[in-house]
Amino acid sequence: MIVQKYKDMLQGKSVIRQLSEFATARGQEIGYENVFDFSLGNPSVPVPQEFTDVMIKMLQERNPMELHGYSQSLGIPSVRDKVAASLNKRFGMNYTGNHIFMTTGAAGAIAHAVRCVTEPGDEVLTIAPYFPEYAPYINLTGAVLKVVSADTENFQINFEAFEEMLTEKVTAVLINTPNNPSGIVYSTETIKELARIMEEKQRQYGHDIFLISDEPYREIVFAGVDAPYPSKFYDNSLSCYSFSKSLSLPGERIGYVAVNPKCTDADIISVMCSQISRGTGHNCPPSIIQLAVAEVLDLTSDLSVYETNMNILYKELTDLGLECVRPGGTFYMFPKSPEPDAAVFSEKAKKYDLILVPSDSFGVKGYFRIAYCIDTEKVERSLEAFRKFIREMY
Amino acid sequence: MIVQKYKDMLQGKSVIRQLSEFATARGQEIGYENVFDFSLGNPSVPVPQEFTDVMIKMLQERNPMELHGYSQSLGIPSVRDKVAASLNKRFGMNYTGNHIFMTTGAAGAIAHAVRCVTEPGDEVLTIAPYFPEYAPYINLTGAVLKVVSADTENFQINFEAFEEMLTEKVTAVLINTPNNPSGIVYSTETIKELARIMEEKQRQYGHDIFLISDEPYREIVFAGVDAPYPSKFYDNSLSCYSFSKSLSLPGERIGYVAVNPKCTDADIISVMCSQISRGTGHNCPPSIIQLAVAEVLDLTSDLSVYETNMNILYKELTDLGLECVRPGGTFYMFPKSPEPDAAVFSEKAKKYDLILVPSDSFGVKGYFRIAYCIDTEKVERSLEAFRKFIREMY
Repeated sequence: MIVQKYKDMLQGKSVIRQLSEFATARGQEIGYENVFDFSLGNPSVPVPQEFTDVMIKMLQERNPMELHGYSQSLGIPSVRDKVAASLNKRFGMNYTGNHIFMTTGAAGAIAHAVRCVTEPGDEVLTIAPYFPEYAPYINLTGAVLKVVSADTENFQINFEAFEEMLTEKVTAVLINTPNNPSGIVYSTETIKELARIMEEKQRQYGHDIFLISDEPYREIVFAGVDAPYPSKFYDNSLSCYSFSKSLSLPGERIGYVAVNPKCTDADIISVMCSQISRGTGHNCPPSIIQLAVAEVLDLTSDLSVYETNMNILYKELTDLGLECVRPGGTFYMFPKSPEPDAAVFSEKAKKYDLILVPSDSFGVKGYFRIAYCIDTEKVERSLEAFRKFIREMY
Repeated sequence: MIVQKYKDMLQGKSVIRQLSEFATARGQEIGYENVFDFSLGNPSVPVPQEFTDVMIKMLQERNPMELHGYSQSLGIPSVRDKVAASLNKRFGMNYTGNHIFMTTGAAGAIAHAVRCVTEPGDEVLTIAPYFPEYAPYINLTGAVLKVVSADTENFQINFEAFEEMLTEKVTAVLINTPNNPSGIVYSTETIKELARIMEEKQRQYGHDIFLISDEPYREIVFAGVDAPYPSKFYDNSLSCYSFSKSLSLPGERIGYVAVNPKCTDADIISVMCSQISRGTGHNCPPSIIQLAVAEVLDLTSDLSVYETNMNILYKELTDLGLECVRPGGTFYMFPKSPEPDAAVFSEKAKKYDLILVPSDSFGVKGYFRIAYCIDTEKVERSLEAFRKFIREMY
């Protein structure tokens, strides 16, 4: 029989999706180049040429039986080894290939990490502002997502609220740094304090509390920003990664879970993930994409455009009198709305062809998200619209 | 906390995997060409050159931002349209792209189809002999797999047992035709009788009972064999497909669910699947693989080797006095073991470097599976080993 739960989910329509659809429709009227569409977090720079070259070379030269052959559900061993080596080199970790589980992007990584360490009914904490997809991601596993209210001062972590909510029912904490939507990177101080509290609570409750660290924006960090690797500070860490943003491959759906070698049952978690896959219907990423990404692990797309765009927008908006915590990475910023209801603000912005996402679905009221992963030329043209909008309306 | 359920699953080791590992180890001793490894169901012929050409052309010519860009979680609309058109042309169906949900292979397809139509605790029937992975696939969704005993006469369906087990608790029936491990294709008569009983029970119980039809071997059907498209005979059908075998792309993990346009809620099932994806962490297959496969939908690898191999082995084994229902498709056959305990038989066969999978894990005792997706030359060389083995031991 058709399951009502999923049918009911069809009613809810994402605000971001609605705004993106509005932008597309408006673009058909006035030309999409005239719509300042800051709604979607899609990379705006191409994949490195090296990736394309590797793909073509493999297709031309390798035996197709091997190239397209079955791979283990954990991922191709040589690829897992290379991911481990790259992380070790960059972050001073001690991963082996055995600690890496290849996934179809960050969503696949989180789905497996959460199932590994939560029983149905267990609570998972996340920190506002947060990626709205975390609610279905977590709740559909049977665990229960709870949201710690934001530290609106600087969008680090509101530790008072965090500690209060970190009850015995919590078996995992899901963080996202650099953060969507705030653009903030958790500082070393923040990660240390997070680890301290979680360790204390582990001792107090006598059970593991896992840190699930969602890091698709890991490579987009701006000059001079302190960007610690969370797993380095807390043993019970599962790092979830996607190459979508760093290599501009969002459609190719590839990522991984990296299991901290010091965590509980570190040596069996990746094989547990492959058991979980049998129920989720997850298949490891396609062989050819795994093999190609493994050859460009230490490259990224030219991500500098995001910092350029951020600097332009940050200056303009703060000059206009808007409050905004300066982003440390990602391609988002999260200014305070000049009126309390961010949805009203977003609606008014549409009249200036500015597509801005109100903050409510990110778990905090009165802010808006700008996804500035668009051409700098368009960012520059948008400034006049921002000026008109803010000056006329506020 | 680490979840015990998945930890416990690590104890069980698949018989097929063990045999395959034995074959590899033995191959290191005597040369793998001398091990008659019939354990694994991996395609033995390459992908059509057209697929490789399309991939290279896209990589060379298309804008990488578009080529690797995000696609909707249901799959790329143009790809879904092409899959629908291909199925309509071949099977006289009336699918639109809206009825197609792209998945990362058949496992992804089944995981979504089952979740769409079963609540936790609902029963799903499958028919022995059956693919052993169905147990974790189904049971980890929260539904309960029940196995209908085999019709060992001809490996169609034991309808007496089926009807008895089709109680009010059953909300889905999972079939696999052409069948792994028997190699049998369900006849039109079988599918019609299956549909008749399921329709009668739907009326009797007043609720839908869905047919989930797992069809990765759909394109491997031998000359003259009646191979109906199950969905054509039963409205509440969800067809699950993988291109792994037809295009020899097992590592690239691409398939789909095709929702019968006449089934209950036909127009929303694919979007329900995309809601389910949020919890499973499923991501639609990579853009580039979707786009490439869509260009070769009506092609297959040169699958003729499988029929050649079947004919050689079938003749030899029946000449040796083994009982075997002649396969109608796939690259499997499923002869009766000359001794009651198939595991003992399989163990003895190893001494002749014949790697044969005992039938117990397929839900029937006293048979063995031969996966003859290997070079014909090796099949021919194996005949002497079969002769020695059977004549000396039986």
